[in-house]
Amino acid sequence: MRYAVLGTGIVGQTVATKLVSLGHEVVIGTRDPEATLARTEPNGHGAPPFAQWQADNTQVRLATFADAAAFGEIVVNATAGAVSLQALQAAGTENLNGKVLVDISNPLDFSQGMPPSLNPVNTDSLGEQLQRAFPEIRIVKALNTMNCQIMVEPSRVAGEHDVFISGDDTDAKKAVTELLVSFGWPGTNVIDLGDITTARGTEMLLPIWLRLWGALGHFDFNFHIQGARA
Amino acid sequence: MRYAVLGTGIVGQTVATKLVSLGHEVVIGTRDPEATLARTEPNGHGAPPFAQWQADNTQVRLATFADAAAFGEIVVNATAGAVSLQALQAAGTENLNGKVLVDISNPLDFSQGMPPSLNPVNTDSLGEQLQRAFPEIRIVKALNTMNCQIMVEPSRVAGEHDVFISGDDTDAKKAVTELLVSFGWPGTNVIDLGDITTARGTEMLLPIWLRLWGALGHFDFNFHIQGARA
Repeated sequence: MRYAVLGTGIVGQTVATKLVSLGHEVVIGTRDPEATLARTEPNGHGAPPFAQWQADNTQVRLATFADAAAFGEIVVNATAGAVSLQALQAAGTENLNGKVLVDISNPLDFSQGMPPSLNPVNTDSLGEQLQRAFPEIRIVKALNTMNCQIMVEPSRVAGEHDVFISGDDTDAKKAVTELLVSFGWPGTNVIDLGDITTARGTEMLLPIWLRLWGALGHFDFNFHIQGARA
Repeated sequence: MRYAVLGTGIVGQTVATKLVSLGHEVVIGTRDPEATLARTEPNGHGAPPFAQWQADNTQVRLATFADAAAFGEIVVNATAGAVSLQALQAAGTENLNGKVLVDISNPLDFSQGMPPSLNPVNTDSLGEQLQRAFPEIRIVKALNTMNCQIMVEPSRVAGEHDVFISGDDTDAKKAVTELLVSFGWPGTNVIDLGDITTARGTEMLLPIWLRLWGALGHFDFNFHIQGARA
């Protein structure tokens, strides 16, 4: 399958590497490929400079958001939540409409200080905002509730734990569930919460995720709904 | 030990019954005891009328918020989040200051339709609001992330699952942890998230809790942080 991964940060890198390892063709999209390749410093979230990662992952081609989206049969939004709307606008409806888009983004708002708050939140979500702005994209919110290493290697965390999906399109959720299973997620640990408005619930897990990170001192943990398979 | 339970709904009833079963003396507080006893209809959340529960639980004395708070060495806030501030005002700082208060309330806001949203949320929490309004009460947010039957009987849900505590007072958190252990919670499943601002994280679990209830069709489930005890 051909995948577009939008976003060249640690989440995009990690997902792109995994997709290549599963035999997929992957183009990773960014706003300005030249600028992305020119960076030599790790970014604020600990990702190595893209060029360094690219040297180790030559099968992944770097392109503009639009070129990546045009290439992908399935699209992964791994951009920062604050710029996701612009990234999809740059990718273009002509390259995105009708496609399944896995939305991993979270609407983290650093303007109120640390820890970040969320915007939108409570009576709206980023997943819904994107779906409203792009009604013809088949958006499935998923994987946004854990560290990116766990997304693609759930066995890093011992014992059962879960991944949530939210979306309006049943077939799109089936396709994303298959993708998650290929990442190593047991199908019984993929919990379908319902339509895209349920993305409020998973995005609003971020505050406790951040506090657990602080309390535990590591992020090799994940949420498990005990009793969900009674 | 002498306990005050503020709030005569299903949460207050359930916690009061459990405390009596553990040998504690319990007074349950309400705004207007006569009105509470006069109700003959189940309330909107499925609790039987208080008088019916009282007939089966004669060891629990009904009193005003103030009388209950004066009686309790430890206070449990099981009122609805929308009226928690008024309930504590009615209970009176002279009856509450210096005491440990277990805050189970959630700031559910039904004014925006169903499912309820939260108010406050994101950059504030009800736990923090109460602590700011009553700086001399030793507030510990706890148990607000699950159905009340599970609060007092964690073995209802098979397997490991967790209860979170948030608060500024270390000794108060120790006292609440002891209470939780007496309810049947293994100490290793009591996760101390940090100060009272971490109540934002647990209150913001409500949206996904409500969606899980919808998706699963029952509420005998609870959150478990897999990997927290690596």
